[in-house]
Amino acid sequence: MAKNALPVTRAENFATWYQEVVRAADMAEHSGVRGCMVIKPWGYKIWERIQRLLDKRIQETGHDNCYFPLFIPLSLIQKEASHVEGFAKEMAVVTHHRLVMEDGQLKPAAPLEEPLVVRPTSETMIGEAFARWIESYRDLPMKLNQWANVVRWEMRPRLFLRTSEFLWQEGHTAHATADDALDETRTMLEVYREVAEDMMRIPLIPGQKSAGERFPGAVETHTIEAMMQDGRALQAGTSHYLGQNFAKAANIAFQDENGQQQLVHTTSWGVSTRLVGGLIMTHGDDDGLRLPPIIAPHQVVILPIIRDESARGPVMEACHALAKRLAAQHYAGEPVRAFVDARDDSAANKRWGWIKKGVPLICEIGPRDLEKGALALYKRTLPANEKSFPEQEVFVSHVAHHLEETDTALFEQAKAYRAEQTRDDVPDFDALKAHFDGEHKTGFVRAKWSGKPETEDAFGAFGVTIRCIPYEQTGTTGPCIVTGEEAATDVILAKAY
Amino acid sequence: MAKNALPVTRAENFATWYQEVVRAADMAEHSGVRGCMVIKPWGYKIWERIQRLLDKRIQETGHDNCYFPLFIPLSLIQKEASHVEGFAKEMAVVTHHRLVMEDGQLKPAAPLEEPLVVRPTSETMIGEAFARWIESYRDLPMKLNQWANVVRWEMRPRLFLRTSEFLWQEGHTAHATADDALDETRTMLEVYREVAEDMMRIPLIPGQKSAGERFPGAVETHTIEAMMQDGRALQAGTSHYLGQNFAKAANIAFQDENGQQQLVHTTSWGVSTRLVGGLIMTHGDDDGLRLPPIIAPHQVVILPIIRDESARGPVMEACHALAKRLAAQHYAGEPVRAFVDARDDSAANKRWGWIKKGVPLICEIGPRDLEKGALALYKRTLPANEKSFPEQEVFVSHVAHHLEETDTALFEQAKAYRAEQTRDDVPDFDALKAHFDGEHKTGFVRAKWSGKPETEDAFGAFGVTIRCIPYEQTGTTGPCIVTGEEAATDVILAKAY
Repeated sequence: MAKNALPVTRAENFATWYQEVVRAADMAEHSGVRGCMVIKPWGYKIWERIQRLLDKRIQETGHDNCYFPLFIPLSLIQKEASHVEGFAKEMAVVTHHRLVMEDGQLKPAAPLEEPLVVRPTSETMIGEAFARWIESYRDLPMKLNQWANVVRWEMRPRLFLRTSEFLWQEGHTAHATADDALDETRTMLEVYREVAEDMMRIPLIPGQKSAGERFPGAVETHTIEAMMQDGRALQAGTSHYLGQNFAKAANIAFQDENGQQQLVHTTSWGVSTRLVGGLIMTHGDDDGLRLPPIIAPHQVVILPIIRDESARGPVMEACHALAKRLAAQHYAGEPVRAFVDARDDSAANKRWGWIKKGVPLICEIGPRDLEKGALALYKRTLPANEKSFPEQEVFVSHVAHHLEETDTALFEQAKAYRAEQTRDDVPDFDALKAHFDGEHKTGFVRAKWSGKPETEDAFGAFGVTIRCIPYEQTGTTGPCIVTGEEAATDVILAKAY
Repeated sequence: MAKNALPVTRAENFATWYQEVVRAADMAEHSGVRGCMVIKPWGYKIWERIQRLLDKRIQETGHDNCYFPLFIPLSLIQKEASHVEGFAKEMAVVTHHRLVMEDGQLKPAAPLEEPLVVRPTSETMIGEAFARWIESYRDLPMKLNQWANVVRWEMRPRLFLRTSEFLWQEGHTAHATADDALDETRTMLEVYREVAEDMMRIPLIPGQKSAGERFPGAVETHTIEAMMQDGRALQAGTSHYLGQNFAKAANIAFQDENGQQQLVHTTSWGVSTRLVGGLIMTHGDDDGLRLPPIIAPHQVVILPIIRDESARGPVMEACHALAKRLAAQHYAGEPVRAFVDARDDSAANKRWGWIKKGVPLICEIGPRDLEKGALALYKRTLPANEKSFPEQEVFVSHVAHHLEETDTALFEQAKAYRAEQTRDDVPDFDALKAHFDGEHKTGFVRAKWSGKPETEDAFGAFGVTIRCIPYEQTGTTGPCIVTGEEAATDVILAKAY
């Protein structure tokens, strides 16, 4: 067995492995500001792919992009009590709008009349706008989305997963009826599921949050829950039905068809750069990142092998010709993204670089391949040194098939891992505690739960939460995992990021 | 002459007219936070068009997108003295990272060890990263770009033109030599010129800033200067050669090919949502916004005329069929963007709505048009009630021509206005003062200038600045407009936004 490309394996230390993948793939790093990351080009290109796929679906489902201010006045935040409670501990506060130099040191000057909070999310700002914009039922539904940065002060930051500043989209909608708003909430969760599962190939459990895990101010929170390769859960996206809570706080009222004043029903939903962390922890292996083809910025990287300068011209020409022919092929409705890496370095160094970055297919073309019209093909889902030698023409005509193969392999592997790490035979609370207590006891447990809110805290003692009440219920009954009483509801229990 | 769609004309009050265009086109509004705007869907779609066109060119010229933190530690800002001086007065400062409720009021708690500035621009943050990332000449050039929000506290805000928070892109590059960095500076100014002039159809004067108008910390600032319809200048984009100033401050060094340590040469360049303001003030008329076709989110809006419910089916079908045929046509390399407005409102109301939003072409199709295969066509560059009745087939095959016509007309009108408002026959400083002194004395004056820095302040007395030293010089000599001494350099003088 060849040595792996990373200095640490998943089995040895998952947290360190994660950092090493991010570093080796050159995706991001910590900045000098606590909890704030620098997203480097490869990490950002992956985020841009996610953005593009998601934005298309957000538009197709009838939402308009817009942009609301970064700052929220304290008095506005204060209007929705449970919302304040949820975010107060992690809000960055702007108190001054000028600096002066005093004794060679810059100091804040010119205090603001009212301190401003850097948005942790924009329900309050957008709610205030809805209150101004919505007058009659004709204005409904109002369906907006914004791509933005938000700040939630983070004491234990991890790149992509938990950062004080992160990038996301937040959708905000207002509806005439609860039914419409609930439809919207579910529609957007399905959009998230489609992008994260069908495109990013992260197996998901969609479901609803229990009361203790809901978004501050929400009536219902819907979620997609994924399992990382250390058996922990990652909440990959959430969609909230806010009922009339924010409508009451901001007085978002409309005149209905009968001339009566009513409050709207609102929703909000968001996914963030955290998805990139989920991608890494779902598909990465001990050689680095592995990218599903729909997400990969480059699907095929072509490396010229030039040992002798006289061969440079024809080899480079063959590489660019191949890239061009590949770009005329399609995968998942888009032209194949092929990239010729002409940097001045050895092919082996470059190949290992792209392996660590997770590119699905790597081709090498050298002088001897020219005569035969062949190439050396490496697939990211096979061991790193395994290669085949297809004819170029055959490779071009089969490229969509090769990408499909990668796509399927990544998804199947992730599903198999999740299946291994999921138990539905934990009989009672003591057995549950025994399962999860201890550092390496992770995975999903599917169990029955009575749904009594006061029982939710019980899991906290061993760091477990109810990840969701899955949409897909078995329909059977059995003893509640906490109280032992007869219960019909399945829940997913896990330790989570 | 028909009444105009806006309550005020450009001639009556340009500043109020501007606000009315933004309001009537539903582009943006002030938020509850001083100086921060809400960009509404129509305004944001226009910004997205600008983003897409610009981002394509930024990538094609070899730059990678990435993302740096929103917050900058005070100690980092402090490193480059002239940079600090330029921005200290307008920096928003985060001093706390928590809120607590005291006597029913939210109060900032948990002071930060070091206050953080909300980025006014990212030279210092990116310079610090460059210093870590760049080791040898092989790492150069390093060419990055980010799309982000920035904050410069603004006491007299105007939508899009001057807001405390704005959206922009900022490019940051590091090079081995001054020549490479200067090439980059000019290349990116040309990219800006291309998007702003060839696509947004804003006539521009590209040139260099005089010392007094340079970016804080820059050795050279290059600019594109536009003239608004009140005769004032708008700086539409800038590209800075920063020399080794930021390299010195952040110690961005590299080992050259001879093994010697050297400092890099850096550049930075940016355009912002201010461009949207420039678009409005260049092309708007007394009926509202007028959009050049390349920028228009919808190039053709199709309005069904339904007076009788029985006609709804066939009319809607004809409208959607027309939209589909238009989408198969191309303008400027992209499919024509046609939109069927099926909202439940009168065609006249809807038509006026789209006129105010600046859509280039509006088509109406009613029951009588169906038999004839015709439509009613309104062009935004013609008087609002003027219409023609082309056959649908003819309109479809000519649509690119109609769009081209709008494109050219807007550019020619803007150039003609600028020519009218430009003088190159102002003989001396007294004449210059007489020209500009007084509320309505605006426009561009092209004059000779000795280039002596101490003479720059002279114009301040009547609110004029040197907008730029145009690349296109006449090559003649004449008396300096300030000192009267023989001078060879042409400058553009104007009052500016």
